[in-house]
Amino acid sequence: MRIGIDLGGTNIAAGLVDETLSITTRGSVKTPRGADAVAREADALVRSLCERAGLRLQDVKSAGVGSPGAVDSATGTVLFAGNLGFDHVPLAGMLSNLLDIPVRAGNDANVAALGEFHAGAGKAFESMILVTLGTGVGGGIILGGQIYDGFNGMGGEVGHMTVQKDGELCTCGRKGCWEAYASATGLIRLTKAALEKNPDSLLASVAAEMGRVSGRTAFLAARRGDAAGEAVVAEYLSYLACGAANLINLFQPAVLCFGGGVSHEGPYLINHLLPLLEPELFPVGEKKTALCLAELGNDAGIIGAAML
Amino acid sequence: MRIGIDLGGTNIAAGLVDETLSITTRGSVKTPRGADAVAREADALVRSLCERAGLRLQDVKSAGVGSPGAVDSATGTVLFAGNLGFDHVPLAGMLSNLLDIPVRAGNDANVAALGEFHAGAGKAFESMILVTLGTGVGGGIILGGQIYDGFNGMGGEVGHMTVQKDGELCTCGRKGCWEAYASATGLIRLTKAALEKNPDSLLASVAAEMGRVSGRTAFLAARRGDAAGEAVVAEYLSYLACGAANLINLFQPAVLCFGGGVSHEGPYLINHLLPLLEPELFPVGEKKTALCLAELGNDAGIIGAAML
Repeated sequence: MRIGIDLGGTNIAAGLVDETLSITTRGSVKTPRGADAVAREADALVRSLCERAGLRLQDVKSAGVGSPGAVDSATGTVLFAGNLGFDHVPLAGMLSNLLDIPVRAGNDANVAALGEFHAGAGKAFESMILVTLGTGVGGGIILGGQIYDGFNGMGGEVGHMTVQKDGELCTCGRKGCWEAYASATGLIRLTKAALEKNPDSLLASVAAEMGRVSGRTAFLAARRGDAAGEAVVAEYLSYLACGAANLINLFQPAVLCFGGGVSHEGPYLINHLLPLLEPELFPVGEKKTALCLAELGNDAGIIGAAML
Repeated sequence: MRIGIDLGGTNIAAGLVDETLSITTRGSVKTPRGADAVAREADALVRSLCERAGLRLQDVKSAGVGSPGAVDSATGTVLFAGNLGFDHVPLAGMLSNLLDIPVRAGNDANVAALGEFHAGAGKAFESMILVTLGTGVGGGIILGGQIYDGFNGMGGEVGHMTVQKDGELCTCGRKGCWEAYASATGLIRLTKAALEKNPDSLLASVAAEMGRVSGRTAFLAARRGDAAGEAVVAEYLSYLACGAANLINLFQPAVLCFGGGVSHEGPYLINHLLPLLEPELFPVGEKKTALCLAELGNDAGIIGAAML
């Protein structure tokens, strides 16, 4: 049995993960402010899970924790994580001291990719890139069954690849990052622009029904055949295809997996993405990168962390 | 002793490579038309090198060949190579039959990266991306001391990453590829556009002196303080920085190495690139990707091929 901890800006989720990579016991607590409080809460959560499962901590092989932000996986230090207010926090070491078992730490997106690869959508494949389409565009690269994160543990920032030089300002300070277009945030921006131009469209009715504009608005309208909605989705997908093609031309992973909020559009997303993606790919032989949807949702972060 | 063969559209170059990764004997012949003729010429070239070196072919451990185009390195087949007219040519097998020693084949840019990594600019580093700035933008990714080329042997197409969606048409059919801007071809396009706008500039005089516009024209004018030349170089470097930052944010290689014609601008290139690159990088810790210039020139292809 191993322990996986998924540290988020809102909640700390943790689970006991068995040899079959299933979560047998799980729980979560609110994320407190400050690194010491986070470590203490995580420690208490893990101990309560073990108690519920009738396990002693000594019987647990190891723990892993996925953290947002820049994580030096070699040392288990969170170099910085804006939404946690972390700056050079030796998170793995702090948890290891409290739990008295080996603890490793990694970037949350990388860790989720590791979980999805071994226990979810990536199981049948030899390599995978997970692209998480949420508030931002996160990702994790799995090569040889392991997280690929470069010589300094900071690689795999798939969202911060420029696809439109001098384009939209990204949260990272760069312009034209894939994240600025292919995230739910980018999709909402496109949707709002279309709403202004098409106030009488079904798209506008859908937005009014929902009471707000979300990453689902344009897809809902497009599925109902609305031209304005379809145009937004087509533009969004053209950006999604652009960055996805870049990743494939560079990495040729066996599978490219989409997770996060926008991926809940399901096969509709993949089926409409494919015809836009194909012409963007550098010609290869018979073995082509497959596309798929993430299967584990938030469990990927816990399972992946346990595998660190 | 191993044999390295660098198959180009114009010449076939080959060398005997010793244990210290030095080329002890070398030679080249014109590249004939047709796969059978290429294999026969390469066979004859290798035999003549061995004869000159007083070696029997049985004493050679193996041979490797770097070929342009799409090469399935697992099978040694050139899937297609436009400038050679190759279509599914089992090049490694054909050469192995003729030479009666094991032969492997790989993409020429990947193979050159392997040579540069082990015997040239990459020697001191744990991972490297070589970016070749020539007629196109080629590249090779070296991770764990080996070529990284994806699950189908076709990865590492760094030039065919879109940095300007819907931008300049690339030779590959995509729009806005890095190659369309950061190649010598892209630089020449920028230079010609600037010449039209600035017919009385020093840039125009330099072009007239040289009798043509090359990838050197703008750099020569910029080095002499010409505003038009400096503007071209600045724009070129902004594109070079954009794609370089994408590669670093994705791969975080220990070193990013520039080869090819434009890299002959030397430290001037690196020194003017750095300030443009820094703001484009996703913030990392203390360990940052180094930049360097390729050292081996065309020898990288021969040495890398011998190491396959």
